[in-house]
Amino acid sequence: MIVITKEKATPQEIQHIKDRIESYDCQIHESAGETHLIFGVIGDVRRIDTGQLERMAGVDRVVRIMRPYKLAGRDFHPQDTLIQVGQVTIGGPKLTVMAGPCAVESQEQIIEVAQKVKASGANILRGGAFKPRTSPYSFQGLKEEGLIFLAEAREKTGLPIITEVVDVASLPLVADYADILQVGARNAQNFTLLKAIGELEIPVLIKRGMMSTIEELLMSAEYVLSKGNQNVILCERGIRTFEKYTRNTFDLSAIPLLKQLSHLPVIADPSHGTGLWELVSPTTLGAVAAGADGLIVEVHPDPEIAVSDGRQSLKPNRFGDLMQALKPVAQAVGRQL
Amino acid sequence: MIVITKEKATPQEIQHIKDRIESYDCQIHESAGETHLIFGVIGDVRRIDTGQLERMAGVDRVVRIMRPYKLAGRDFHPQDTLIQVGQVTIGGPKLTVMAGPCAVESQEQIIEVAQKVKASGANILRGGAFKPRTSPYSFQGLKEEGLIFLAEAREKTGLPIITEVVDVASLPLVADYADILQVGARNAQNFTLLKAIGELEIPVLIKRGMMSTIEELLMSAEYVLSKGNQNVILCERGIRTFEKYTRNTFDLSAIPLLKQLSHLPVIADPSHGTGLWELVSPTTLGAVAAGADGLIVEVHPDPEIAVSDGRQSLKPNRFGDLMQALKPVAQAVGRQL
Amino acid sequence: MIVITKEKATPQEIQHIKDRIESYDCQIHESAGETHLIFGVIGDVRRIDTGQLERMAGVDRVVRIMRPYKLAGRDFHPQDTLIQVGQVTIGGPKLTVMAGPCAVESQEQIIEVAQKVKASGANILRGGAFKPRTSPYSFQGLKEEGLIFLAEAREKTGLPIITEVVDVASLPLVADYADILQVGARNAQNFTLLKAIGELEIPVLIKRGMMSTIEELLMSAEYVLSKGNQNVILCERGIRTFEKYTRNTFDLSAIPLLKQLSHLPVIADPSHGTGLWELVSPTTLGAVAAGADGLIVEVHPDPEIAVSDGRQSLKPNRFGDLMQALKPVAQAVGRQL
Amino acid sequence: MIVITKEKATPQEIQHIKDRIESYDCQIHESAGETHLIFGVIGDVRRIDTGQLERMAGVDRVVRIMRPYKLAGRDFHPQDTLIQVGQVTIGGPKLTVMAGPCAVESQEQIIEVAQKVKASGANILRGGAFKPRTSPYSFQGLKEEGLIFLAEAREKTGLPIITEVVDVASLPLVADYADILQVGARNAQNFTLLKAIGELEIPVLIKRGMMSTIEELLMSAEYVLSKGNQNVILCERGIRTFEKYTRNTFDLSAIPLLKQLSHLPVIADPSHGTGLWELVSPTTLGAVAAGADGLIVEVHPDPEIAVSDGRQSLKPNRFGDLMQALKPVAQAVGRQL
Repeated sequence: MIVITKEKATPQEIQHIKDRIESYDCQIHESAGETHLIFGVIGDVRRIDTGQLERMAGVDRVVRIMRPYKLAGRDFHPQDTLIQVGQVTIGGPKLTVMAGPCAVESQEQIIEVAQKVKASGANILRGGAFKPRTSPYSFQGLKEEGLIFLAEAREKTGLPIITEVVDVASLPLVADYADILQVGARNAQNFTLLKAIGELEIPVLIKRGMMSTIEELLMSAEYVLSKGNQNVILCERGIRTFEKYTRNTFDLSAIPLLKQLSHLPVIADPSHGTGLWELVSPTTLGAVAAGADGLIVEVHPDPEIAVSDGRQSLKPNRFGDLMQALKPVAQAVGRQL
Repeated sequence: MIVITKEKATPQEIQHIKDRIESYDCQIHESAGETHLIFGVIGDVRRIDTGQLERMAGVDRVVRIMRPYKLAGRDFHPQDTLIQVGQVTIGGPKLTVMAGPCAVESQEQIIEVAQKVKASGANILRGGAFKPRTSPYSFQGLKEEGLIFLAEAREKTGLPIITEVVDVASLPLVADYADILQVGARNAQNFTLLKAIGELEIPVLIKRGMMSTIEELLMSAEYVLSKGNQNVILCERGIRTFEKYTRNTFDLSAIPLLKQLSHLPVIADPSHGTGLWELVSPTTLGAVAAGADGLIVEVHPDPEIAVSDGRQSLKPNRFGDLMQALKPVAQAVGRQL
Repeated sequence: MIVITKEKATPQEIQHIKDRIESYDCQIHESAGETHLIFGVIGDVRRIDTGQLERMAGVDRVVRIMRPYKLAGRDFHPQDTLIQVGQVTIGGPKLTVMAGPCAVESQEQIIEVAQKVKASGANILRGGAFKPRTSPYSFQGLKEEGLIFLAEAREKTGLPIITEVVDVASLPLVADYADILQVGARNAQNFTLLKAIGELEIPVLIKRGMMSTIEELLMSAEYVLSKGNQNVILCERGIRTFEKYTRNTFDLSAIPLLKQLSHLPVIADPSHGTGLWELVSPTTLGAVAAGADGLIVEVHPDPEIAVSDGRQSLKPNRFGDLMQALKPVAQAVGRQL
Repeated sequence: MIVITKEKATPQEIQHIKDRIESYDCQIHESAGETHLIFGVIGDVRRIDTGQLERMAGVDRVVRIMRPYKLAGRDFHPQDTLIQVGQVTIGGPKLTVMAGPCAVESQEQIIEVAQKVKASGANILRGGAFKPRTSPYSFQGLKEEGLIFLAEAREKTGLPIITEVVDVASLPLVADYADILQVGARNAQNFTLLKAIGELEIPVLIKRGMMSTIEELLMSAEYVLSKGNQNVILCERGIRTFEKYTRNTFDLSAIPLLKQLSHLPVIADPSHGTGLWELVSPTTLGAVAAGADGLIVEVHPDPEIAVSDGRQSLKPNRFGDLMQALKPVAQAVGRQL
């Protein structure tokens, strides 16, 4: 950590700053510029709130040198984390393909989709039983019934299931059925939920919030990791910007950047990332070419009557086409489907 | 709701669209443009998911006419909602001033602040006992001990207290102590929490999420209102943008816009809205001049050692200066302090 | 300037970095942290491109200490700049009120507006003769004819005129008629235009680009100032964000922040800042309460038939109401109308 | 165009609205909803300013049905535009690779880069002679000398050259040397410049502005096309968002969306799109997999001493590696290098 003093800092202010730094059991390396003093702060600076120091009279700026995440970062964990879910290894050379409807709507629907996406090459089934919706008047999910249908689809197809958990109260129930938990974009900074998931061992996919920085996404992962659960998967699903033609702006470079900064697997969500089914296929190809470890994509047997997200869902045959198109791209970057 | 067909929609597609609309028990008023058909959809369109219709072959676009919020809007509730908290009426001609530290740190600290902000004219005490923090390594609040200290400060000063609730599990405890609940920006779309608060009668202040549109903030209010709790207060606290000098961008025009669209009281948070204590005072004056019903502002006896948000907290004497400066501005727009 | 080395920088890399810094005739104050070296760079660092240093092997980060603007900043120019335009002093205790239509449409229109806004208390007339429009099919302004009409309105009312200049080719013509030049948001980083205006002495109002940071706005001012023209006025007119109800997001705290960082006058544009006439009045009151030195507002005798920006233009009588409402707010913050 | 009236519109207001629409020689198809009237407007609506209509008493909203661009859109020009530059066809199955330094710095530098990027497979040389810089104190380009060096590099290698034009004054000079003009992000809405380029026949690459919507980028293209110059190339180069780790956010889905909406070639700029050389290679692979017709990438023989953009420039050998990695990805999506 570096503390830069103001040009007009008084000797008293400077002494006060030094005393404060030393009160944290840190040492100071002082360096005098022409107009500013620069204090290098040595020691365990993790406990220092930069806002406090910046608030002191005489302080111009405080610069953190260390990244605030430790467990999620590559520095102390250089090798890639691989997460095993049944037969599927997430984070290895073989791409993980999670596919299925936004919401579980009926037993028939989820089983039909499960069979079709499996036939096309998906290796994990997605489907929401608990749905966080912007409007209280929208369909909120089949809840436990939806979980039961998912479990039946798993039984019929052998596909592990990923499903969203929206709060601590339903966490035990959801964790009982799911193979992978999904934390949605609106819960990306629901720290209570993240801490509770951290107490479990079940894998969790954390979606980037609509306005989460990459650093904040890694800090959300840090919440889970710091409680003991090491099975964290990161997911880029688009961020909110001024652009209006697409629902979100898919941040392509977040994928290689997360791979560089972190050892955790990175999954792309081209459905929410664009909001338009016509863009799902090219966005998927792009994400995999840029280094994604897999994708999570919405597939619905009849998107026109989907209870949610129909606009961005693929029909099963188009999903099949996507998988065909994806194969050579995956190979081109040294991955398999 | 209006459905606009594509220029090249086939007769079959058009018939399919009409059948779908009618399956919702809605009627169609058809109008032919030169290149497009326009269907006015009449009936209870609230149940129709626009995404579904937009996904249909032959549909170009779907336009909602009605605002998606009903209880939060002024159309069916033209008069201002007034919320009574002890002696304080929120939403009336007298401004509500909520002041206090970001976090409750000790009994002495909160009592000292309470007495000082009361002396300067604040009528509600703020202070966080449960703190949602980006880093798991940061101070997370004194929890119940903090609530007890807040209650003691209330007893000593007579000021009602507002404090943040971060999850459903701690809601009964927090509601037991608080006069007003605060839902933070990161929980603005924690629908589980909003629904649980909706079951109570206690007033709740909902902060706009850093990524929430004005419409989404009103939909969050709708969650609480639709469950029965009518005591909802809206709060503009800045949104996230590309600007780097300030922590957030305080969206001034959100205040008059919320007052026009909704009957609920609107409070400004200049502390989070700017992130810099130097900007708190002018931003407060601006927010009140633009029509805010009050403010929530961070005051700390010694911001340099505040465990959080020291950079944006006012010292008590500066808060006193702000209250002095605010008085004539309030009068200039027909409000009292 | 501070250079922070990477944790794993080799001795060769470190020597290479030092040589590079010294090649700029700068000195190095070295300070060793536990994992990083920190180099304070002393000397004329303005010539060093931080991107170059950051690109060097072994460099983790480069931190600039000095603000990149010098002439626009308060450090070397602590007193407020006052700009005299005829009888009007911009930047002093009396607020500057620039009002008029978005575009000059006819002789009658501009004279009518000029007389009405003057009667209500405006002291400068605005009106566009050259209009930058998103669509090539939209009205592009009356050009020289519009300037002639503006000059006639000035003659009839005594109000100085401000009008937009869109390129270097038309600059001599526009400067011939105008009392103040206006550089629009889309030209806020048209450096060729800014340099050309810098060669003149005529006052210029620079609007913040919809994508400009506060620092970039000050750098745009620096372009004009560094060429010799000291008569620069800054203008906050809203930035582009994700919010959809308003055309732009008016960044209230930019006003006090610009006043703190710079000695230049700061004008608020509530018309473009919101895009909705219903919000112009409260936004104006807020901007003045927060410290704006004046405003620039669109007034049209019949906004429904305005050739541009009708949605955000006030009718003359509403402008009159605004001026009445503004008077006590101005007084409350020590300003006059 | 559709006009939706307010719920409480009076008969007089409604008549007034109808009269206005008819004054544009347009016809009205009226449709009554339960609470609103809906007017379908038939005729040449391109001349109607939606802001004017929205400003009328009784109007709730105006919805445009037609896209505002016509020449840039696919509707009337379904086949892809191919642009011939010497031996290079931009927009066809063979990818266009534009490579070279941000700025031309010397004769040796540009010739060295030209030879190296050609050897690796680039088919167009990029290099800036006129540089728009945020700071007036930064290097502004070698100007005509830079153009001469570029021409020499073209002579030595046979590579056509693309170089930036920053204003109308230097346009004839730049057009004299360049094979393709480049309009930078800051000039994406410099309509004077776009119109002047529209009068020529030389190909032009228009970069998306940092805060331009996709629609605005297409409208900028429309300016050039509507003046007669049909040789327009679009370029996605990242947009400005809240994310801080990268210089811009590369909007991947803009590429397939532009290809769907428009017949013009679409080029990706991964250098500005990310700002970090480490991310250039994966971002390039992603952009090509998603359908880009080519790329424009910064390559410098010694990025550490580049006068600008060193942080995002590739070394020639890394560019060679990128071209090797790109080849199989291009083939996987049916393109050639």
